[in-house]
Amino acid sequence: MGFKAIRGDIVHAPSKESLEIHPDSYIVSDGKNIVGVFSEIPEAYGGIEIIDHEGCLVMPGFTDLHTHGPQYANLGLGLDMELLSWLEARTFPEEIRFSEIVYADRIYRQFVRDMVREGTLNAVVFGTVFLESTIRLMEILESSGIRAYAGKVNMDRNTVKGMTEDTRKSLADTEELIRRSKGNDRVRPILTPRFIPTCSDELLSGLGRLAEKYGIPVQSHLNETLSEIEWVKELYPDSSSYAGIYENFGLFCKTPTIMAHCIYNSEEELMMMKSGNFFAAHCPDSNSNLSSGIMPLRKFLDLGIKVGIGSDISGGDTLSIRQCIVSAIKCSKLRHAESDESILPVSMTEAFYIATRGGGEFFGKTGSFEKGFTFDCIVVDDRELHPAEMPGIDERLQKFVYCGSYRNIIARYVEGNPVDPEMVMEMDLPVKGKLDDK
Amino acid sequence: MGFKAIRGDIVHAPSKESLEIHPDSYIVSDGKNIVGVFSEIPEAYGGIEIIDHEGCLVMPGFTDLHTHGPQYANLGLGLDMELLSWLEARTFPEEIRFSEIVYADRIYRQFVRDMVREGTLNAVVFGTVFLESTIRLMEILESSGIRAYAGKVNMDRNTVKGMTEDTRKSLADTEELIRRSKGNDRVRPILTPRFIPTCSDELLSGLGRLAEKYGIPVQSHLNETLSEIEWVKELYPDSSSYAGIYENFGLFCKTPTIMAHCIYNSEEELMMMKSGNFFAAHCPDSNSNLSSGIMPLRKFLDLGIKVGIGSDISGGDTLSIRQCIVSAIKCSKLRHAESDESILPVSMTEAFYIATRGGGEFFGKTGSFEKGFTFDCIVVDDRELHPAEMPGIDERLQKFVYCGSYRNIIARYVEGNPVDPEMVMEMDLPVKGKLDDK
Repeated sequence: MGFKAIRGDIVHAPSKESLEIHPDSYIVSDGKNIVGVFSEIPEAYGGIEIIDHEGCLVMPGFTDLHTHGPQYANLGLGLDMELLSWLEARTFPEEIRFSEIVYADRIYRQFVRDMVREGTLNAVVFGTVFLESTIRLMEILESSGIRAYAGKVNMDRNTVKGMTEDTRKSLADTEELIRRSKGNDRVRPILTPRFIPTCSDELLSGLGRLAEKYGIPVQSHLNETLSEIEWVKELYPDSSSYAGIYENFGLFCKTPTIMAHCIYNSEEELMMMKSGNFFAAHCPDSNSNLSSGIMPLRKFLDLGIKVGIGSDISGGDTLSIRQCIVSAIKCSKLRHAESDESILPVSMTEAFYIATRGGGEFFGKTGSFEKGFTFDCIVVDDRELHPAEMPGIDERLQKFVYCGSYRNIIARYVEGNPVDPEMVMEMDLPVKGKLDDK
Repeated sequence: MGFKAIRGDIVHAPSKESLEIHPDSYIVSDGKNIVGVFSEIPEAYGGIEIIDHEGCLVMPGFTDLHTHGPQYANLGLGLDMELLSWLEARTFPEEIRFSEIVYADRIYRQFVRDMVREGTLNAVVFGTVFLESTIRLMEILESSGIRAYAGKVNMDRNTVKGMTEDTRKSLADTEELIRRSKGNDRVRPILTPRFIPTCSDELLSGLGRLAEKYGIPVQSHLNETLSEIEWVKELYPDSSSYAGIYENFGLFCKTPTIMAHCIYNSEEELMMMKSGNFFAAHCPDSNSNLSSGIMPLRKFLDLGIKVGIGSDISGGDTLSIRQCIVSAIKCSKLRHAESDESILPVSMTEAFYIATRGGGEFFGKTGSFEKGFTFDCIVVDDRELHPAEMPGIDERLQKFVYCGSYRNIIARYVEGNPVDPEMVMEMDLPVKGKLDDK
């Protein structure tokens, strides 16, 4: 691993307040981590390898803080329904198919390829209840070259036949996944209770124990729809809040915790979310498609709650975090116009920050080009997007975010290594495990 | 012109209530208009030319009922602003450039190419105040092979230097445009007062006279934002409604009339909109980007008011009416969730209907495959969109609308003639007129 640099028109958002722009400059790294951004290669680094993307935009890769790999085939389908009926009619029947590793392998490869195509370099992914196919998901993520957390889903009640787990087996399989994924630094396990209604007390407390024992992070869903919240209240009439239930079982911020949606939050819950271990995954497309409502994003920013963006397919209809940035901005504007004038919309810069450095923080120092951050980036050839003159870099970023496509992304790097989305289709991963047991 | 047929998996929405689906069938035409849809070519039509798109989706082309050609270079830029400040900072400075026909030619060609790429076969387009560049726009639309209305914008007050027209010249140029575009059946003129605040009484009444004299339709903007409505009220304190001002000048439904946006309407205005001559252009992306609000689409459908979809670039951020369908559905769901539970969201079928047959009605019998309708369609190769098995045609339509791109559209036909979006870039249109005068 030697020092190297990338040359291009550099743009990133080290803070949510403003973009940092470096026309025709160099990101210099020790190969893995960033040393600095310079308009000329400093003398001390003379002669290092230079990856030349002159004239292209170089920006941080995106972080997808909440998505469901096994729902990829369902993308864009059945969106005339709301959450709970949609889960039963569309989601669960599809996820059952992932008991077959051949099917899982087929869908997960396309899911990961298409996610990487879109410039996502960090992803936090729900698998299914099935251990072997979740391990396959992790293998495919590993072979893709990006950074990821993946979770075996836990559900032992209120779900469908074929996916209702035996509580002890659910916990044992989860522990097995943790053990088998040890030693992998780029793709790691995350505890994944689906949501409160599908997990018994015994399961939740068992997961809480695993979180503590292995220091493993947690992801789940919170305050997505009013009917879901009503249901949770019926199940736990004595709890003061939905978030409080997770907390009682050791699943809220004892270890780093991602909660998707967070639309309808009590003041008590918002205070809990100010924990340094908490990340809200804002999923604007999913929240629109399932008529859930609009998360008060500005409020989260003002309170200093950490937020990232989640594609949340197939509640969401795109894997592109670039498109989700646009949706997040639009939703914040519609909330402002339709129902709460006091909450101002978020700006392009704020949404870009959330999609890169905001969610990236879950993975450590990644998502911007600050010193010491991982040497990750995507390279965008945006020439075809401009019918007239090329504008400044600020506007070129806007144009790419609003009007670009994954086809404009011509290169991706993670810790200095090129990442090729098409590779995962060819990787030799033997089909093993569960299939032969049947 | 002889009889011919197109073969494929056919889907269209002759009514907003349901899709009509014909797996592996034939649309038979007399070359220009549709005779019927058949599962086998009827004996009477044995031996006619068959355009074979077996396995592809064949659906009506889209109608864009409201868009601004000269704002194409601005697409995706400057969207952190609201309407009135955005007009001043971004829109007007760009439109002034269209006094130069060389520039207009360059941008309009790319605008029309990219609109046709997206499967729009009927378009109603705002030009600028400049006569010659609007004529160039019409020539490019004509050469593209699609059906269109284009309008020279009228503005003689409250705009910027360089675009404030002399009232009499504005009317004379408009009449000149009407005369020069006579005899063209596919691309026709439409009267285009920008909106009430930028047009004097004299200009508005002059346009009303032109509408009557030539039987020319009208397009403008209505009830887009609260501050705009406030401004109109200040200008016409005695008018009972914004729509009523247009009506007083003979510009509301005396001839076919498109009003874009229609978000904040009085009951009186909604009643006026039930006229057979009225079309609302719903522009969900623009209304989100400019924080305008959400049009009560369901209410329009329930009242039987005619509605089409408008991309409204560059308030909108895409020329794709396919994407606008998704935005219309999402917006209707968010309005339902955020501010008016009593108004139900629209379904996929309803939104698809609006984007095809709904807006298409402005052009006559177009936008579905009913008998006597124009023989127009787009052909979609959607195989790459399906990670698992190909589902039914209903779901394939959903997948294309939510997850497709213009690259999936492999052919387009208007009145039986193939339409190639790339052609407009090569068409030999001499640069003439204004440029030499300068």
